[in-house]
Amino acid sequence: MKRIKLVVAYDGTDFRGWQLQPKVRTVEGELNRALSGLLREEIQVTGASRTDSGVHALCNVAVFDTGSPIPPAKLSWALNQRLPEDVRVQDSCEVAADFHPRRCPSRKTYEYRILNSRFPLPTRRRYAHFTYVPLNVEKMRQAAAYLVGEHDFASFCAAASTAETTVRTIHALSVEREGEEILIRVCGSGFLYNMVRIVAGTLMEAGRGHIEPWQMADILNARDRQAAGPTAPACGLTLVKYEFL
Amino acid sequence: MKRIKLVVAYDGTDFRGWQLQPKVRTVEGELNRALSGLLREEIQVTGASRTDSGVHALCNVAVFDTGSPIPPAKLSWALNQRLPEDVRVQDSCEVAADFHPRRCPSRKTYEYRILNSRFPLPTRRRYAHFTYVPLNVEKMRQAAAYLVGEHDFASFCAAASTAETTVRTIHALSVEREGEEILIRVCGSGFLYNMVRIVAGTLMEAGRGHIEPWQMADILNARDRQAAGPTAPACGLTLVKYEFL
Repeated sequence: MKRIKLVVAYDGTDFRGWQLQPKVRTVEGELNRALSGLLREEIQVTGASRTDSGVHALCNVAVFDTGSPIPPAKLSWALNQRLPEDVRVQDSCEVAADFHPRRCPSRKTYEYRILNSRFPLPTRRRYAHFTYVPLNVEKMRQAAAYLVGEHDFASFCAAASTAETTVRTIHALSVEREGEEILIRVCGSGFLYNMVRIVAGTLMEAGRGHIEPWQMADILNARDRQAAGPTAPACGLTLVKYEFL
Repeated sequence: MKRIKLVVAYDGTDFRGWQLQPKVRTVEGELNRALSGLLREEIQVTGASRTDSGVHALCNVAVFDTGSPIPPAKLSWALNQRLPEDVRVQDSCEVAADFHPRRCPSRKTYEYRILNSRFPLPTRRRYAHFTYVPLNVEKMRQAAAYLVGEHDFASFCAAASTAETTVRTIHALSVEREGEEILIRVCGSGFLYNMVRIVAGTLMEAGRGHIEPWQMADILNARDRQAAGPTAPACGLTLVKYEFL
């Protein structure tokens, strides 16, 4: 038996998220189907990040065990023949038999993109959240600075979360303007349920002047989901980097 | 009567191109439908660039005449309520009664994007042509230099063209690497049918070493479509700028 690690890219638009669910289209479901067909044994992958419906990834990670003689590096080619065009395996390799993508220390980077122009741009509609309300990037940056470091992010966690602790560490959080888009880039060891989208939604509140940057300290201290801004729409979010330490 | 100019952005993926055709979905057809419904009169727009099936635009131009009292600048908002999400009017304004977008001297800029990596990236599949064959950007750049200026581009014109002359001027043609993508950017006063895609396809032939850059002079001189490379796929092409001089 070998443990194989896959690096998986997908366009989340037409998926009900990563995690396997009956009767709906999920990335995990497509991977299981393609792998089981290729290897002629029932395969169930274990995913690293269970992204939500509509969220994209350049590099999510999945592992599974197989006795197949196919060389691990060749699996990506064979799998891509069997996957739909909105999922593509970017790499495949053998890893240690005890490697588990959710238990291994890691660093994830997400990007949240906002198209901040007069009108939506059709070619960006799947990959950037559109708002015509002018956002002040400098205010967003000032607000973002309060979130960097180790904090209790209970205010930035969806109610449905079952996490044992709401303490997390944000290593870096930047806000940049790129033409008509605003790019929020956040790197951390792990994120609570909907945390990145609530951070993005709250930074947008600061950008439009509904809250002042210094209020971010109060929002953190409240440890209450009601204190933070809305959850920003899924389409703007992409998992862009996944490092195992 | 007023003549109104619209700046139109669209994702060409799900359109059979710009130009009105019976029974298929076209950008012109969607604009006519939305305008006729909004203004309660039969409107037929005149387009600037008749882009092909699958080609995108940030700023194609359409004009029409109307006696409507709606202020021209407000039309874009009202129209966007009636258009499908893959077309969005970016601007609307009144122009001179004799303004015709195809007869007015203009300068157009197209971008052709190639994803040159091991595997396709699902989030780029609609907007960049994928090839895993390594392309040498420096060779592509050397080949591109031969095409800048006024030339007879008969070798770069699809057979179906009805153009009176195949002489055109390319003002600028650049090839840049942006991460895993190669961006070809071409600016000219006008292009023959499929010309930008044939230029992209021929530069790719230079990039993979099938032709040497100096052979571009022979290809131009041949004045024969067979001398140039293949027509690159539509998905990589976007009309990004349209200036009236």
